[in-house]
Amino acid sequence: MDLYLGIDIGGTNLKAGLFNKRLDLLAKGHYPNPADNSAPSLVDHIAESALSLLSEYNHSIDEVKAVGVGSPGTVNLKEGIIVAAPNLPFRNTPLRNMISEKLHCDCVLENDANVAAWGEFAAGAAKETTDIVFFTLGTGIGGGVICDGQLIHGFSDQAAELGHLIIYPDSKRMCGCGQRGCAEAHASANSTAARAEEGLMAGAKSSLQSVFQEKNEVSSKDVFIHAEQGDPFATEIVDETVEVLGLLCVNSLHFTQPEKIVFAGGMIASGDFLLDKIKEKFNTYIWTMQAESVEICFATLGEDAGIYGAGALAAAL
Amino acid sequence: MDLYLGIDIGGTNLKAGLFNKRLDLLAKGHYPNPADNSAPSLVDHIAESALSLLSEYNHSIDEVKAVGVGSPGTVNLKEGIIVAAPNLPFRNTPLRNMISEKLHCDCVLENDANVAAWGEFAAGAAKETTDIVFFTLGTGIGGGVICDGQLIHGFSDQAAELGHLIIYPDSKRMCGCGQRGCAEAHASANSTAARAEEGLMAGAKSSLQSVFQEKNEVSSKDVFIHAEQGDPFATEIVDETVEVLGLLCVNSLHFTQPEKIVFAGGMIASGDFLLDKIKEKFNTYIWTMQAESVEICFATLGEDAGIYGAGALAAAL
Repeated sequence: MDLYLGIDIGGTNLKAGLFNKRLDLLAKGHYPNPADNSAPSLVDHIAESALSLLSEYNHSIDEVKAVGVGSPGTVNLKEGIIVAAPNLPFRNTPLRNMISEKLHCDCVLENDANVAAWGEFAAGAAKETTDIVFFTLGTGIGGGVICDGQLIHGFSDQAAELGHLIIYPDSKRMCGCGQRGCAEAHASANSTAARAEEGLMAGAKSSLQSVFQEKNEVSSKDVFIHAEQGDPFATEIVDETVEVLGLLCVNSLHFTQPEKIVFAGGMIASGDFLLDKIKEKFNTYIWTMQAESVEICFATLGEDAGIYGAGALAAAL
Repeated sequence: MDLYLGIDIGGTNLKAGLFNKRLDLLAKGHYPNPADNSAPSLVDHIAESALSLLSEYNHSIDEVKAVGVGSPGTVNLKEGIIVAAPNLPFRNTPLRNMISEKLHCDCVLENDANVAAWGEFAAGAAKETTDIVFFTLGTGIGGGVICDGQLIHGFSDQAAELGHLIIYPDSKRMCGCGQRGCAEAHASANSTAARAEEGLMAGAKSSLQSVFQEKNEVSSKDVFIHAEQGDPFATEIVDETVEVLGLLCVNSLHFTQPEKIVFAGGMIASGDFLLDKIKEKFNTYIWTMQAESVEICFATLGEDAGIYGAGALAAAL
């Protein structure tokens, strides 16, 4: 049987999935990163995790036709190099060739947001579409853009930095990237929590105050729970987040006109409460000149989007 | 000799260009649209203009391998149909087949902004690049996006409506499209003139007042001329325009990461005075996290971008 490995490298652990050509997920596993956080030891870890997964399910590396790898950071796709990555020891690391040599099979390397987008495109919420824009709502906001069935990489593989689209040019809120008014600075899970904490510290009346006093912090999840329970302050914070997400949808539509806009990441755990609000905000902002339609939806593969995407890239090699 | 025709349909006249396979412009002509403004008479006019150009330069239609046509309006590319077009009589008009049957050769149809982008990409400012974002600054703001050497069309051929990216969500300025805060409503030539007129009517001190009193209006060109001469009010209006153009550059870079961002249209007649200001504003807004580079430049084909683009599409059929 021809098999394909999908590897999703994270800051603290690695996920691996084993797929057939039809992209059925045959097996998967989680493998905590080694304490010795050097590039060669991480490559060894990737190879050992892959072999361990194969052996656990009675397969051998000889059956593996190709391996796909998604990594955080700046990737040089042509050369298969990780230029730099936050929380990982890669600096101009030729990861593609290192893995290919270790596992004696072809390897394809992509950045993690693109891999997750490709996963949802190949096997998840955006299956059977050709054009999508994909957002991950987590600590930051990541993105992936697929047009006519192709990932958009840009001139030097830096496309789809969708968290750094400037939404509020006059904002006083600085983004970690150095810009003002980025989507990420106003609508990530971190920003949602931070805006709530700022208000709570300034004495906002809210059911969140008891959470804040107990934990000395609130999470984006707390904010969404209290908003859904009807707390006006939490609702206001959520609406600020949603306004940005609605604007991202309008601007995505006018840029590459996707058939679907897919949101993923921790924040989508809020479910229809969030999704309905995004759709409502989109409909408030979008033009009235002519009917425009785009399906705004949530990702369906959850934590497995990365291994699906990496597996699909491998199967397409 | 194998020849290719590039046709650029406008609201009041038609431009036609004759090209060889290498995309050398062998001949070109302007042909005023007929008074009888019906779809069939416009198709006749296109065919007659093409034949007239060929005959003037001693060529025959038998030498023409294919014709490319750029049209304003909403185009269904797969079907070769103009769904609707402002100032033109097309309503679900199967223009591609009509022209193909009239001229007995293959025809490719595209919308005019994409055709102009393709012209600059194939023969103008963006030659020898693979990834561009293209803006036309005229009455409105049009756009074209090329990624990895391919025009981005979107799910139903509505991509690259770049004038309708929302730049100022809280703006009171309505766009003709029904949205608030569109780039077009703040930075087109029309908007630049309109904002100046609003200020002049409100009594702004400016060297533009004498122009306004004489003509009862000011043009975008007037505003740029007076700004370049140092008038503070005109400079303020220009800077508002430029702020939007700088933001469009930042957001284009973070969406599809072009190698070049190309501005075209009447407003670029202001030359380096405008270009330098856009670059300066871009550098003010862009992130500082890591060096980012994109070449911001002006189109070089002027009025001929449409015929070049249409000719290049024909030659690639």
